[in-house]
Amino acid sequence: MDREKRMEIRTDLALEEKESIQAEGMEVGGVSLREWKEGQGAFRITEVVVQNESGARAMGKPVGRYLTLEAEGLRWADESYLQDFALELAKQLRRMSQKFALTPEGNIMVVGLGNEAVTPDALGARVVSHLKISRHLRKEERLELFGQARSISALVPGVMAQTGMETAEILRGVVKESHPSLVLVVDALAARSVRRLGNTIQLSDTGISPGSGVGNHRSEISEKTLGVPVLALGVPTVVGAAAIAQDTFHALLQVLAREERLQAYAEYMEKLQAEEQYALIRELLEPEFGSLYVTEPDIDETVRKLGLLLARGIHQAFYASL
Amino acid sequence: MDREKRMEIRTDLALEEKESIQAEGMEVGGVSLREWKEGQGAFRITEVVVQNESGARAMGKPVGRYLTLEAEGLRWADESYLQDFALELAKQLRRMSQKFALTPEGNIMVVGLGNEAVTPDALGARVVSHLKISRHLRKEERLELFGQARSISALVPGVMAQTGMETAEILRGVVKESHPSLVLVVDALAARSVRRLGNTIQLSDTGISPGSGVGNHRSEISEKTLGVPVLALGVPTVVGAAAIAQDTFHALLQVLAREERLQAYAEYMEKLQAEEQYALIRELLEPEFGSLYVTEPDIDETVRKLGLLLARGIHQAFYASL
Amino acid sequence: MDREKRMEIRTDLALEEKESIQAEGMEVGGVSLREWKEGQGAFRITEVVVQNESGARAMGKPVGRYLTLEAEGLRWADESYLQDFALELAKQLRRMSQKFALTPEGNIMVVGLGNEAVTPDALGARVVSHLKISRHLRKEERLELFGQARSISALVPGVMAQTGMETAEILRGVVKESHPSLVLVVDALAARSVRRLGNTIQLSDTGISPGSGVGNHRSEISEKTLGVPVLALGVPTVVGAAAIAQDTFHALLQVLAREERLQAYAEYMEKLQAEEQYALIRELLEPEFGSLYVTEPDIDETVRKLGLLLARGIHQAFYASL
Amino acid sequence: MDREKRMEIRTDLALEEKESIQAEGMEVGGVSLREWKEGQGAFRITEVVVQNESGARAMGKPVGRYLTLEAEGLRWADESYLQDFALELAKQLRRMSQKFALTPEGNIMVVGLGNEAVTPDALGARVVSHLKISRHLRKEERLELFGQARSISALVPGVMAQTGMETAEILRGVVKESHPSLVLVVDALAARSVRRLGNTIQLSDTGISPGSGVGNHRSEISEKTLGVPVLALGVPTVVGAAAIAQDTFHALLQVLAREERLQAYAEYMEKLQAEEQYALIRELLEPEFGSLYVTEPDIDETVRKLGLLLARGIHQAFYASL
Repeated sequence: MDREKRMEIRTDLALEEKESIQAEGMEVGGVSLREWKEGQGAFRITEVVVQNESGARAMGKPVGRYLTLEAEGLRWADESYLQDFALELAKQLRRMSQKFALTPEGNIMVVGLGNEAVTPDALGARVVSHLKISRHLRKEERLELFGQARSISALVPGVMAQTGMETAEILRGVVKESHPSLVLVVDALAARSVRRLGNTIQLSDTGISPGSGVGNHRSEISEKTLGVPVLALGVPTVVGAAAIAQDTFHALLQVLAREERLQAYAEYMEKLQAEEQYALIRELLEPEFGSLYVTEPDIDETVRKLGLLLARGIHQAFYASL
Repeated sequence: MDREKRMEIRTDLALEEKESIQAEGMEVGGVSLREWKEGQGAFRITEVVVQNESGARAMGKPVGRYLTLEAEGLRWADESYLQDFALELAKQLRRMSQKFALTPEGNIMVVGLGNEAVTPDALGARVVSHLKISRHLRKEERLELFGQARSISALVPGVMAQTGMETAEILRGVVKESHPSLVLVVDALAARSVRRLGNTIQLSDTGISPGSGVGNHRSEISEKTLGVPVLALGVPTVVGAAAIAQDTFHALLQVLAREERLQAYAEYMEKLQAEEQYALIRELLEPEFGSLYVTEPDIDETVRKLGLLLARGIHQAFYASL
Repeated sequence: MDREKRMEIRTDLALEEKESIQAEGMEVGGVSLREWKEGQGAFRITEVVVQNESGARAMGKPVGRYLTLEAEGLRWADESYLQDFALELAKQLRRMSQKFALTPEGNIMVVGLGNEAVTPDALGARVVSHLKISRHLRKEERLELFGQARSISALVPGVMAQTGMETAEILRGVVKESHPSLVLVVDALAARSVRRLGNTIQLSDTGISPGSGVGNHRSEISEKTLGVPVLALGVPTVVGAAAIAQDTFHALLQVLAREERLQAYAEYMEKLQAEEQYALIRELLEPEFGSLYVTEPDIDETVRKLGLLLARGIHQAFYASL
Repeated sequence: MDREKRMEIRTDLALEEKESIQAEGMEVGGVSLREWKEGQGAFRITEVVVQNESGARAMGKPVGRYLTLEAEGLRWADESYLQDFALELAKQLRRMSQKFALTPEGNIMVVGLGNEAVTPDALGARVVSHLKISRHLRKEERLELFGQARSISALVPGVMAQTGMETAEILRGVVKESHPSLVLVVDALAARSVRRLGNTIQLSDTGISPGSGVGNHRSEISEKTLGVPVLALGVPTVVGAAAIAQDTFHALLQVLAREERLQAYAEYMEKLQAEEQYALIRELLEPEFGSLYVTEPDIDETVRKLGLLLARGIHQAFYASL
């Protein structure tokens, strides 16, 4: 089925996109899903692989691997949980980067995407602010400080409203001058479900597509545009207000379906063509909710914690024993 | 009608509460409403007066005067608009404080409520950070610096999660030691409608009730608890996610009503008892949306601007020619 | 000798005051000094006790106990060093508070002094921002969350330029309403020597005197003014520019003394009456350096780290097994 | 005279360098100085032109034009003064950029140098945060929003400790991709005299040399390294602690010279060879003061204000009637 005709609420999580297609009872050709537990069951890992163009059309996401690390305990995590989480994140980061055949000398450029001045969009910049940078150190200094010789550089390019430039344009220039072996972009994401805010980490080897992220990047950031492999690491910090309207709509149908006298109506609604449903939701949402986000009252704290935690995972992945 | 049985979505704006009651076709005894324009039509002022206990029960707000200043142009305001706005705010602040018969020597304590570390709740603290404070200056210094001799002090008490104390407890202690003639509390509010975010200013002479504000104050801050008159100044920075669910519900009914074959259902739904509607919405909302806020992506910028602007209005009101 | 006639450069550290008096070869009656090592030699502890009014006059500090914890390794500390440091700080905090006979139910109010908006003066506010607050929780909640039932509250009162009130005035009011058993004030200090910046922690049981702290408090904060015992915890973050001028002066004399042909002058200079030396330095310093501070380029990072670390020590002292 | 042999205290201000050479009674060949008043005498403008390599050697600064705008009233400025200042800055910015023959379509990239996380070094980033960016807008949008069609882009590259890359390396890459006609770098400077902190603005057409700025840039940022003209705008926010030691030294000599019995000694000191004086000061300063800065207690406020003010001047220079 054509993706544009489905009732689509934007999500940056491949896992949610897959679930949403399945919930509508559609077959998704060219997309595989595998899931397992790690950390004595504390973390659920889900790997969605978009295998070909047909899968990419259905998912609205480029061909590649999307790995999701769900850590529901993060909000109330103690130090031991955080340590386990950082180790697991490091393991998956290393796994994802294996395909790029990084040598121990291979250097990594970490890019904090998003707008530092907008809290839910500041995750990328926060992560970079906690990173230990080594590219400018001599090899001996690196060995002494970080126990190995990997070189890490970093950049917070800002968003187009701040720079007047496409982020891809800035990165392309810097990559050409500094020659990293791998670019790791870190970004705040938009999810479909409020329960994923702050606790679902997505890793992908496809880079960043136009329209994704909290700030809605306009240009693609990928191996195609930068000339070097791009790994993307993100966590949802917002849900579009549209998602809540849609949830209300569906919940309403379920409630109606329970009341005998309204059942016929509920069934009718469910049978509405996807196009009609989509138009209906659009009508409900416009004009006020279009650009609004739902975020949690403690978003400042969430972004602060995740900034530290993702930096810790990156350190474990690329500085510890290679 | 009993307020608990209405389909209630929390709003701190008396104006919205009044509109919501009227929209349900109910009579509101003991509440008067007056509205007019100021600033060559740029600002709509609405004054809701809760006249007696019956009005207070219907409105869920204490007896007193609630003045709303709507400035839809604020988002795109130029300097001249901002100046007009600050003057208008100053005029209304002075009007509201007249009843307290402040003498020129009367001193004012401005209190920035809310949690500075949570952007949408930081408005009070931001306003105070821009205030010119004069209480510690000698009378001659005040005259020289501010063109008059009014004494202004200020406090940012923090929220209970930060202090372990009720805000009212802290304020009562400080008021007893420093003897202000009037306390002006500034706070971020929750609205019912997203279109009021950042552009509707409410002034009231009733203080702050438990359950109001973004951070949901638990204790009353009023002349009763502090022993001196309390003026409250606030601007909505969030809308509860519940409000969006309710909006979706109502919009849905309107859409249904337009389709001939569904009209019967729509009419039926509309006739549902308020209690049933309320139960339905509650069911839709729980458990996930309960504590969530909708806020705008540019909330950091909105709070920054309003912080400066409200401080400017307060300066105009209490420092300029008495 | 009369303190006003000595060449005095302000320091908040009793240890430096003692050293400075001794360096001038003076006897200090009424002041005892004891020093020892802790943490396998990692931390030097020095305890200066001002025993009577004669000692207080010589030292320019009230009668009481001043404990200094020197941790030269803090700048480059790893997690294990930080943990040891926090434990040591906790031990000394408990030792100092023993004399106040805190019962397990005794509640503590932590006060972050200083101006949050001025980085070197923000230490108090930062510490409070990291504190776990328990006073508003029920006893069972506290036991569950913190492993004991001590109640901790906190306040960041701001400085007089922000509030228009003496800090002591605000605290007196809040103490009267909330009845803590002990007040622990945390503050950024001014040291005499740049090598103490950020690594010397002072604990005292005398409260805060007028003229101390980075922001130069004007009023005393002590058991006398608040009515409850006051413990003070501080770390130097600035050195007055005057101190550098004085250091230059003394270093110059030493250099002169080495050159044979200039020795006579150097000797003469050294023999100058203290009054003349003092006048000379004053003349050198005025008018430009008077109010200037020397601080380190990485003061933002230093204050950030110390904020976390002191909060950790306070947690260890008052939440862990009573 | 060879610059290395003079008693050199680092300053980024060409004006101070020139004054310091003259104070030592030396001839400075190849350097011209012109000064005049603007703004009804409110602003002193000084233009130092380093005309050839001999001048460059004496000054320790590259050949080019250095314009200084002194605005002693900035600290206590009212709105009208600030407006005058912004207009004057804009006038000088346009004057300096004339030599680059910018066409109305010529686009400008503003670069905020320095470390945002270190307050005295954050000036560049603050200025950029207040800039109105237009490069990403269509020509019609620009005309509508800014009254002309100039395109402005901006970047905050961070410092090497944050990025692992030379700033020049990052800029070269971005310039190659985005093709600005002119790069305007904004930076916090180190001055020699505390009285210049926050009120002396320097504009130069030579770019940034290694070793300049608060953070001591290691690489040159100039037309030679970037391939496009570079204009530099800076304001001193720190003074090296060494400068205070030197000031003490000189003041001491003056005091000595006044006392008859010490005059011979003072004269002798003054006659010391520059080399000996230099060695003496070095000895006084090492090891502790070497890397320390003197800054003002209200540096946070100074940087905040200057950030707004320089952005205003840049807007006036490049957006208003071309």
